Amino acid sequence: MSDTLFGPDNLPYGLFTTPDAPGHRRLGVRFGDDVLDLGAAAAAFGSLHTEVLRAPSLNALMAAGRPVWQAVRAEVRAWLTDETHRETAARHLLPLPQVRLHLPFEVADYVDFYASEHHATNVGRIFRPDSEALTPNWKHLPIGYHGRAGTVVVSGTPVTRPRGQRKPPSEPVPAFGPSQRLDIEAEVGFVVGTPSTMGTPVGLAGFREHVFGVTLLNDWSARDIQAWEYVPLGPFLGKSFATTVSPWITPLDALDAARVAPPPRDFPLLPYLDDSAGGIEPGGYDLRMTVRLNGHTLAEPPFSTMYWTAAQQLAHMTVNGASLRTGDLYASGTVSGAEPAQRGSLLELTWGGREPLELPDGKRTFLEDGDEVTLTAWAPGPGGTRVGLGDVTGRVTPVE
Amino acid sequence: MSDTLFGPDNLPYGLFTTPDAPGHRRLGVRFGDDVLDLGAAAAAFGSLHTEVLRAPSLNALMAAGRPVWQAVRAEVRAWLTDETHRETAARHLLPLPQVRLHLPFEVADYVDFYASEHHATNVGRIFRPDSEALTPNWKHLPIGYHGRAGTVVVSGTPVTRPRGQRKPPSEPVPAFGPSQRLDIEAEVGFVVGTPSTMGTPVGLAGFREHVFGVTLLNDWSARDIQAWEYVPLGPFLGKSFATTVSPWITPLDALDAARVAPPPRDFPLLPYLDDSAGGIEPGGYDLRMTVRLNGHTLAEPPFSTMYWTAAQQLAHMTVNGASLRTGDLYASGTVSGAEPAQRGSLLELTWGGREPLELPDGKRTFLEDGDEVTLTAWAPGPGGTRVGLGDVTGRVTPVE
Repeated sequence: MSDTLFGPDNLPYGLFTTPDAPGHRRLGVRFGDDVLDLGAAAAAFGSLHTEVLRAPSLNALMAAGRPVWQAVRAEVRAWLTDETHRETAARHLLPLPQVRLHLPFEVADYVDFYASEHHATNVGRIFRPDSEALTPNWKHLPIGYHGRAGTVVVSGTPVTRPRGQRKPPSEPVPAFGPSQRLDIEAEVGFVVGTPSTMGTPVGLAGFREHVFGVTLLNDWSARDIQAWEYVPLGPFLGKSFATTVSPWITPLDALDAARVAPPPRDFPLLPYLDDSAGGIEPGGYDLRMTVRLNGHTLAEPPFSTMYWTAAQQLAHMTVNGASLRTGDLYASGTVSGAEPAQRGSLLELTWGGREPLELPDGKRTFLEDGDEVTLTAWAPGPGGTRVGLGDVTGRVTPVE
Repeated sequence: MSDTLFGPDNLPYGLFTTPDAPGHRRLGVRFGDDVLDLGAAAAAFGSLHTEVLRAPSLNALMAAGRPVWQAVRAEVRAWLTDETHRETAARHLLPLPQVRLHLPFEVADYVDFYASEHHATNVGRIFRPDSEALTPNWKHLPIGYHGRAGTVVVSGTPVTRPRGQRKPPSEPVPAFGPSQRLDIEAEVGFVVGTPSTMGTPVGLAGFREHVFGVTLLNDWSARDIQAWEYVPLGPFLGKSFATTVSPWITPLDALDAARVAPPPRDFPLLPYLDDSAGGIEPGGYDLRMTVRLNGHTLAEPPFSTMYWTAAQQLAHMTVNGASLRTGDLYASGTVSGAEPAQRGSLLELTWGGREPLELPDGKRTFLEDGDEVTLTAWAPGPGGTRVGLGDVTGRVTPVE
């Protein structure tokens, strides 16, 4: 296997087509640089789960619940690694370059959080220099907002530069045109499998029952549009034009060896968010992310520094009785570490555009047409291995 | 016909089941106090559109596009009113009390606007007494945010009082518990039928091609949760626990006689929002709304006073290239007129809870457990008739 990031301890799920059957969407599992055709393999091995593995998206498997996720994962691992099965499995492996990858699940609701203290502090200083960097609520609850589910796209989808209103404080009226401050946000997304009932909160302990897997996520952001629109009801058109996710959804169980304790909390938390109590598993994940622009490394954000965990976000999101649906996607918010080279957005890396980056292909404040952004990440796996998340890439195309 | 609000010029669409086949969801059209079984009638009359009319939700018809909407509407009207057809149609009419009504479409994305100048001014004065009531952007763009699509429910669904964090400015740390300031927002929702392509804005003139119909909408709001959470990223848990819509979606064409010019604009608008240009149809609608609490009239908000129109909201929502999907729902924001008795929320009616209402069953600031809220509305129809929107009702149940 040429790529140890996608070994037998990873086994992420995706959705693919082949050129001879472009309308036939099939579930796959990535193994090295190959894709296992899940439905075909399941039929060949007589799996009890053949029906959900032949579905045209991941939603059926995601909705089947954790016991099925675990059974399928064990089966697939056996097919790919047991001597007795490998020959049969090999007949259903396709080289990655021969397939086209699609958005692997139907997004229900999309929520974006704001969970990095370093990011929120930086943004507060840049956007609201006359106020405290963190709002008074920030350390008491994971701040989040709903985003547009219909514009979540798979890695590789071109991103058209959005147009919109912007108004620098120095101008009397807003102007309209292509965004001049197009940015990225390097995030980690969590995908809900098991739904929940309206009126019944999902507590911290429900995280692993409800969350199916993990994706990298680029929350493309037009800072000029956002700055003018976001008071008082939050980001809207500055974010809603595109959000890119990985073609591969890494099962939560593949990240067990990467679990870490989150940073110490500065305030006692209300019981529904308090993960310092006994019996609660550590909610952080040691994911090492890299952000590249046209191949050049911009930043290496450490996900382990996030103040709020994905389990806390899930508990918060449902504490008012809101239900979960299969396909709900929630993202961490921009991942930024304490160091300047760990910042997950150009807004922070260039301090609001005032400190341009010197790149091999010229200076950059915000994204230019033609720029390609790639997010990658890996996590410690069992026994010194590494578990890779699926890359997220996107190129900016000019608006006509 | 006992109820002229649902005569032959209205013909709203819904989704129903009968007690003998509770799993068989069928499309219906309301006619007076009866429901026409659309799929059965279409088959009996040999309609070309039988397939979409036999679907288990409105989405197939909504996705079929305006020419089909118009053809089906003309057909249904003929079935119900032509002498030659009435006998056949009568065999497929069921009395309303014999059916159960369901959420008539699958909600894709849900967006909530903030389009009443009177409402935004009142809220600004109540929530931000030390600032200008309207933010500087308010008259330049229709402010909106994404809400939770997964908790949009049909009229009649009980609403469990949400729990959450609240922190009055006088307290040092937040408390947790059932909301003490549970409120309503009387709104009008617009349902998208025809989808659009990412990267291609839908202009003002595209409104009637893309919007299928209209519903009343109660944007239940927990003011104490909202006040503590909403800076800087907007409303989240204060809204996401429930949003109630009508069981009947009124076709846009049924409201043609209700079209009115919106109020005069105080600032020139950017071209993509400027509906004063020639050739653009008036974007306002003369809908007369009533808000009742336990049967007692609280307010009569006039939708014709909204500063931003639904066509402007659609143009704004897509100007950045965001696409539309069949089932997208966007709401007007609370409808409040200039007069105190025209305010569409308890927040405004009781001025932040400081001026309780005297009702026959006692004083009210915010909602109490057991309270039932009902929204109704009608619009002028052709030739002096009236066109009713489907009622929206919901009762508050205590949280366990």
